[in-house]
Amino acid sequence: MGEKRKMESDAKVLERVIESAARAAAPAAASTPAERAAWLRAAADALDAAAAELIPLAAKETHLPEAPRLRGELARTTFQLRLFGEVLSDGAFLGATIDHADPNWPMGPRPDIRRTVVPIGPTLVFAASNFPFAFSVAGGDTASALAAGAPVVLKAHPGHPELSERTGAVLRDALVGAGAPDGMFDVIHGVEAGVTALKDPRIAAAAFTGSVPGGRALFDIASSRPTPIPFYGELGSVNPVVVTPGAVKTRGEAVAKGFVGSFTLGTGQFCTKPGLLFLPEGHGLDDVLREAVAAVPGQPMLNDRIAGGFRDAVARLRGEPSVTVLAGPEPDGTRLRPTLVTLRGADFRAAGEAVRSECFGPSSIVVTYRDQEELRELLDELEPGLTATVHAEDAEVEDIRAILPALTRLAGRLLWNDWPTGVTVSWAQQHGGPYPATTAPTTTSVGTAAIERFLRPVAFQGFPDALLPPALQEANPWQLPRRTDGHRD
Amino acid sequence: MGEKRKMESDAKVLERVIESAARAAAPAAASTPAERAAWLRAAADALDAAAAELIPLAAKETHLPEAPRLRGELARTTFQLRLFGEVLSDGAFLGATIDHADPNWPMGPRPDIRRTVVPIGPTLVFAASNFPFAFSVAGGDTASALAAGAPVVLKAHPGHPELSERTGAVLRDALVGAGAPDGMFDVIHGVEAGVTALKDPRIAAAAFTGSVPGGRALFDIASSRPTPIPFYGELGSVNPVVVTPGAVKTRGEAVAKGFVGSFTLGTGQFCTKPGLLFLPEGHGLDDVLREAVAAVPGQPMLNDRIAGGFRDAVARLRGEPSVTVLAGPEPDGTRLRPTLVTLRGADFRAAGEAVRSECFGPSSIVVTYRDQEELRELLDELEPGLTATVHAEDAEVEDIRAILPALTRLAGRLLWNDWPTGVTVSWAQQHGGPYPATTAPTTTSVGTAAIERFLRPVAFQGFPDALLPPALQEANPWQLPRRTDGHRD
Repeated sequence: MGEKRKMESDAKVLERVIESAARAAAPAAASTPAERAAWLRAAADALDAAAAELIPLAAKETHLPEAPRLRGELARTTFQLRLFGEVLSDGAFLGATIDHADPNWPMGPRPDIRRTVVPIGPTLVFAASNFPFAFSVAGGDTASALAAGAPVVLKAHPGHPELSERTGAVLRDALVGAGAPDGMFDVIHGVEAGVTALKDPRIAAAAFTGSVPGGRALFDIASSRPTPIPFYGELGSVNPVVVTPGAVKTRGEAVAKGFVGSFTLGTGQFCTKPGLLFLPEGHGLDDVLREAVAAVPGQPMLNDRIAGGFRDAVARLRGEPSVTVLAGPEPDGTRLRPTLVTLRGADFRAAGEAVRSECFGPSSIVVTYRDQEELRELLDELEPGLTATVHAEDAEVEDIRAILPALTRLAGRLLWNDWPTGVTVSWAQQHGGPYPATTAPTTTSVGTAAIERFLRPVAFQGFPDALLPPALQEANPWQLPRRTDGHRD
Repeated sequence: MGEKRKMESDAKVLERVIESAARAAAPAAASTPAERAAWLRAAADALDAAAAELIPLAAKETHLPEAPRLRGELARTTFQLRLFGEVLSDGAFLGATIDHADPNWPMGPRPDIRRTVVPIGPTLVFAASNFPFAFSVAGGDTASALAAGAPVVLKAHPGHPELSERTGAVLRDALVGAGAPDGMFDVIHGVEAGVTALKDPRIAAAAFTGSVPGGRALFDIASSRPTPIPFYGELGSVNPVVVTPGAVKTRGEAVAKGFVGSFTLGTGQFCTKPGLLFLPEGHGLDDVLREAVAAVPGQPMLNDRIAGGFRDAVARLRGEPSVTVLAGPEPDGTRLRPTLVTLRGADFRAAGEAVRSECFGPSSIVVTYRDQEELRELLDELEPGLTATVHAEDAEVEDIRAILPALTRLAGRLLWNDWPTGVTVSWAQQHGGPYPATTAPTTTSVGTAAIERFLRPVAFQGFPDALLPPALQEANPWQLPRRTDGHRD
C-alpha cells in the first residue's frame, strides 16, 4: 500500500473556494436547466476523455482492479451526469404549480400564486472512499447538486487524494469551459478544512457518504450551527436477506453462492453488502457456503485503516460466544480473507452489537430461524438500513406478504430474488432509508430524485408575468409539465 | 384573562398514547389513499358540526373574536382537511415511478425497479398558540400527516387546553368512526410530556409551529437523539416589505394604510406579520402612518406571557438610539397599542438585533433607503424568513428584477402589491424558507405539498406483481399518473 501525499487545504485556499462558491450561487440560480444540462454533458465527456489518466490513478490509490470495476464505475459516473441532464430537459423536477386567482375558493378568495423550486445554495459534499468515481468527486451528490444549480465545494476523501485532485480539475475545467460560473465546483482536502467549511455560514447544505461515526459527527456539527442546514448523510446499513424454505429447497446452492459473491464483492466494501442472511433451520447449506467462501481469492482493502477496522470487527464477531465460524482465518492473519459466521435466531436476539451493526469488509452472518413467527420477531429487532432482500418461490408469496410490512420498515429498497450490491442509477431508484441508513429518510442519494435534496420551493403571489421565472409564466415557454388550478396539464 | 386549568399528561397516559400510535402505524400504512380521504372528510364534517361548541371555547381561551376571525379559521381548517382528501384522490403524491428491466441500460443491465412512498411513521405535532384551529390540534401539520398515513400524537398548546381537548376528541372520534385505526390520533398536554415524546424511539418525525427559541430547543432534541428524526419547525420571520418610489408617488397613502392593517391584524400575532417596511427617503408618509396606527383599536394578546414578551421587545426597540417612534405608547402602558418606529438605512445597518429579528405582536419598523443600491445592501443583510413583499408600479419592473435574487434568497414566498398576512391553502402555496423561517427549507407546512414531509420513498426491485403496492402494479389499478421508463404517462 503506497505512501500517500497528505493534502490539507489551508485557510487561505479554503476561504477562496468557499467565497467563489458563494459568488457563483446567484449566476448558477439564474442559469436555465438547459444550460446546466450542457454543463453536465461537457463534464461527462471530459471525464470519459480523461479515462486513460484517471483509471490507473484510481487503481494505484484504491487497490481496486481497473477492469471491470473501475472502468465500469467511471462509465456509471459519466452516465449519471448525463442522466441528470435528461432530468433537466424533462423539467418535472421544477414542480411548476399554478393556482390562478379564485374569488370563490372555499376558504376565502385566493390570490394568484405560483410555486417552483430554486437552488438551495452552496453545497458541501464529502466524498466516499469506496467508490473513487461514483460516490466521490464527480459522483452522485456532486451531479445532483450541480443539476439543481447549487455550487459544490467537494471535500476529497483522503483515500485517493491525487485522483481527487485530477478528477476535480477535469470536472471544474469542463464546467467552466461550458459556461458555468467560476466557483461552481472546487475541491478541498483535509478533515479540518471539511469541518471549517461545514460550519461556514455561506454553506447552505451538505451531503456525505461514509461511516456511521463519521457521518453522525458531521450531522451533529451541521445541526448545531447557529443556522442549521440540511445534512444528507448516507451512513451504514446491515442489509438483511431472508431466504425461505422453498428457495432453499429449489435452489439453495445457487442462493448460497450468490450470497457469498455479493458479500465479498469489492472486498465487501459496499454500503449495500448483505450483512445478515436469514436461513431456515436445517438448511443444509453450510458446506456449500464454506466452499464458496474458500473459493474467493484474497483481496486487498482500500487502505490500511479500513483493513484494521475490519480485522477488529471480525475479532468482535468471533468473540460472541454463540457464534460459530463457518469460514475465515483467525483475525490476526495478514491476508484478508472473507469471514462467515453463523448463529441461531434465539442466540442472535441475546447477542451483542457485533452481530447487528454494519461491518465494512468481506464478512457476513448466517442467522437460522425456526419458523415464520421467529423470522418476523428477528426482523422487528433489526435497525433500519438501505436494503432488505427476499429469496423466495412464487408459491410463497403469501408468506412474504405477511412479513412485507416488517421489511418495509427496515429499508428504502426491497429486492426479490436478487442481491443488493448492484445499485442502478435510474428514475425509480431509491438509495436511502431511516437512520442509521441515512440522516434524511425522505430523500435518496442515488437516482434522479437525488436532485430534490438541493432545491428549495418558492411561491410567487400576484407577480407580473414579466418577473416570473419562465417555469411559471402563463404561456409556459419551456412547455413544462405543470399543475394548474389543481389539475395536471 | 381567565385562569386556565393546567393540564399535564402523566407518564401512564403518555405511554398509552405513544404505544397506540406505534400500533396504528402498520394498519395506517396498509390503508388506501381513498380510505384516508374518507377519514379526513369525516373529520372535517365532525368539526364543522361542532362549530357551535368549539368557536366560543376558542374565543374564551384566546381572546380572538368569534367573527369573522374564528369562524373563518375553522372554515379554513375543515377546508384544509378536505383538500388533502383531494390530494389523496389525485394520487400524484405517491410519486409512482416504474423502470422496467433494461438489458441495454447504458451503465449496465437494469433490473425492474419501482418507487413510491410510504408513511414515515408516528409523528409528534406541536400545536401553535396563535391559530387555535388552523395551526393547532386539527391544523395543517395534523392534516398532512394523517393524509400521509402517519399516526399523530398532538402536543396541545397550553394557551387553549380546553379547546385542544374538545377538538381532539371530535377529531379522534370522527377518524376512528370512519375506520381509522385506534391510535391514529390523540392529544397530550404539558412541556415535559412533549419533550419525553420527542425523545421516544417510536416517534419517527415531528412538526412544530412557534417561536425561534422554542422551536430551536426542540429541533436540538430531535437532532441529538440516538436515532435523529426529521423535525419540521416553522419558527420566526421578519417578512420585509419593499416599497418603490413609484408606488409611494402613485398610491403612497393606500400602501401605508395597507401596511398598518397588515402588521396590526390579529394583534400582530401572525408569523407572516410585516416587520420591516422599506420606504424611499423623503417618502412623506409619516403622518399617514401615524394616523393609521392611532386609528387601530387596542386589542388583547393571546395571553399574559405573550403580552409580556411583546412589551419587552418594544422596550428594546425603543432603546435603540437611532430609532424614532412614529406611533405607540410608552412600553409601561397597560393597554396594548400598536407601535411603529422608523430609522434610516445607514443606522439600521449599525443597529442591534432588536431591529432585525421577529417581534411577535403589533409592532413594525420603517427603514428609509437612499437609493436602489442601499436597498439591495440592506436586503443582503437580512436573515431569511417566510415572505418578502414588493409594492411597485408596472413601470418599475426592471428595478425589481435587479433585486429579485436578493428577495428570493430571503423567503419561501414572494408577494407583489399584496400583504403577507393572508396565507391561502392551495396546491401552489409555499409556507417555509431558510432558517430561522424553518428548520427544513426544502419543505412547506401549508398547502398540498405539506404531505411530502411525512412520506418516505421505497423502491421495489424485481418484485412479483402480486406483492407490489397497487400504485406500482403493472396494470395501474388506481389509474395513477406515473413515470414509466423515464416518460411521464
